[in-house]
Amino acid sequence: MTAAAYDVAAIGNAIVDVIAPASDDFLAMQDLRKNAMTLIDEARAASIYEAMAAGVETSGGSAGNTVAGVCSLGGKAAYIGKVAADQLGQVFGHDVRAIGAHFDTPPLSGGPTTARCLINVTPDGHRTMATYLGAATSLTPEDVDPVVIEGALITYLEGYLFDAPLAREAFVKAAALARAAGRKVSMTLSDVFVVERWRAELIGFMDHIDVVFANENELKSLFETDDFDLAADRLASMVEIAALTRSEHGSVVRRGAEAHIIPAFPIDKVLDTTGAGDQYAAGFLYGLSHGRPLDVCGALGALSAWEVIGHYGPRPQASLKDLAAERGLL
Amino acid sequence: MTAAAYDVAAIGNAIVDVIAPASDDFLAMQDLRKNAMTLIDEARAASIYEAMAAGVETSGGSAGNTVAGVCSLGGKAAYIGKVAADQLGQVFGHDVRAIGAHFDTPPLSGGPTTARCLINVTPDGHRTMATYLGAATSLTPEDVDPVVIEGALITYLEGYLFDAPLAREAFVKAAALARAAGRKVSMTLSDVFVVERWRAELIGFMDHIDVVFANENELKSLFETDDFDLAADRLASMVEIAALTRSEHGSVVRRGAEAHIIPAFPIDKVLDTTGAGDQYAAGFLYGLSHGRPLDVCGALGALSAWEVIGHYGPRPQASLKDLAAERGLL
Repeated sequence: MTAAAYDVAAIGNAIVDVIAPASDDFLAMQDLRKNAMTLIDEARAASIYEAMAAGVETSGGSAGNTVAGVCSLGGKAAYIGKVAADQLGQVFGHDVRAIGAHFDTPPLSGGPTTARCLINVTPDGHRTMATYLGAATSLTPEDVDPVVIEGALITYLEGYLFDAPLAREAFVKAAALARAAGRKVSMTLSDVFVVERWRAELIGFMDHIDVVFANENELKSLFETDDFDLAADRLASMVEIAALTRSEHGSVVRRGAEAHIIPAFPIDKVLDTTGAGDQYAAGFLYGLSHGRPLDVCGALGALSAWEVIGHYGPRPQASLKDLAAERGLL
Repeated sequence: MTAAAYDVAAIGNAIVDVIAPASDDFLAMQDLRKNAMTLIDEARAASIYEAMAAGVETSGGSAGNTVAGVCSLGGKAAYIGKVAADQLGQVFGHDVRAIGAHFDTPPLSGGPTTARCLINVTPDGHRTMATYLGAATSLTPEDVDPVVIEGALITYLEGYLFDAPLAREAFVKAAALARAAGRKVSMTLSDVFVVERWRAELIGFMDHIDVVFANENELKSLFETDDFDLAADRLASMVEIAALTRSEHGSVVRRGAEAHIIPAFPIDKVLDTTGAGDQYAAGFLYGLSHGRPLDVCGALGALSAWEVIGHYGPRPQASLKDLAAERGLL
């Protein structure tokens, strides 16, 4: 096994966020389920955007946010994801490179535009998301650069991409490359609706996975049970490590019969939970790729999630490296 | 004179802001003068952007910010400015319409891209701007819609556009249309460098102007004097109303020999002065178009400027209408 160029190589939906204030009436009028993520087509994206307030644009995407967290911790990261050859694609590419990550997936030409997530923020601070995936789901196995995957200690797969058949093939290719190079493969289940759509396929796919991230709802849905411990046992029997998040109740990290209960960092006021799971994964993967014990990996995840829910926006604003150093976690 | 469809019709450079954190070293390395606005070409815009940190994109432009202020006060506004037929142009158009303004200037096809202002924010909160004007300076007299100008109580011209010959012709056309319709014409001098470049031409152009906005440095430069009162007297002899801003020392509003000294609203902490002049103009123009006395117009300007310097970003975040109502200014 050669020296690693990257701690983490992440594959995900490359998305630019469009964030604007909105009323609860607006959500109702646009038939958007509050706090949820709704997939929309281009026509609906145009019509919702037209009705939205003036906003700001900023790079997002679940695995992109995780890469930002890994870099903020001082880690080395690469990102693989599909933008279009348009201005929003340039913005996404600029931002992911500007945080220090490697990114050279060729942009899509002549197809759909760069993916956008229309985020309507109600006065209570909650975010309601409508995502037009555009070019993002055009990711193919050809976009998986063997040099990147083989050079990364851990490959990280964003579950949202499991919907797209060619992207799923890209996952299979990346996992095979990583395993053959003696690297680890990790995945987040991303969303309870992804789990509902692909339950059997996801369970089958766990054969390719060493480290899985799931929140409580995703985990329970995967095994169609309300019993968290039972579901955790089942997942722990399928993969080497399962990192299971429970919002304010912290997380549980399992390795076989071994279990670590990780508390959440206390917070006065949760401003915006977007990106909490993405940043938990960032902290955990940073720790794991640096050979830290599982309880420290979990604490790094909890700390990174804590930083991001204390402000608006899904990417770290403070240096996670400094925060982790202050708490003796590095 | 028919009833007015708009309180204010503004003509300006249609610009999308790209805002990112930066160090003082970065400014030095990029040869950017701190706190100043530097005009750059497309190649330099690409090279500065490549070196910048990950950022956010949001609509800006001086007169665009003023229109946002007028709308926030409850006024009716129209905007005339040139974007390109690209995604950033769509963002600009969406945002200016989303704040409630009329905007239908045809986008430029096959030419430069939509203008961008690269704003590097240093840890002390100061903003250093590098502007690529792109499509914005392609504004021509044909873009000046007579229906919009004749339907606006006050037409407002952004001095930055005085650099572009065809845009200056557009100003002449707009001023003539407004005057012929019995409306008023206003202008901001925008920038001391604009004044230095076009001093004689600007003085000549005052024949077309009823209401002029200038800050202390622009005013003194226009008449090449260090004597504020002398310069104010000279400007007051050329136009009906001169609204002269002096940062924390408030403003002076002149109409002939009549002078109103308007204090600035006290503020604990100035977070970001970008847009202060734009919002002063918004408040003043709103008051003037609603027949308020000049001291109230000045107070509305001061209040609007006060709101915008208390947060990051050049457009109001609170309702200026509510703030003005609370203070009995409406």
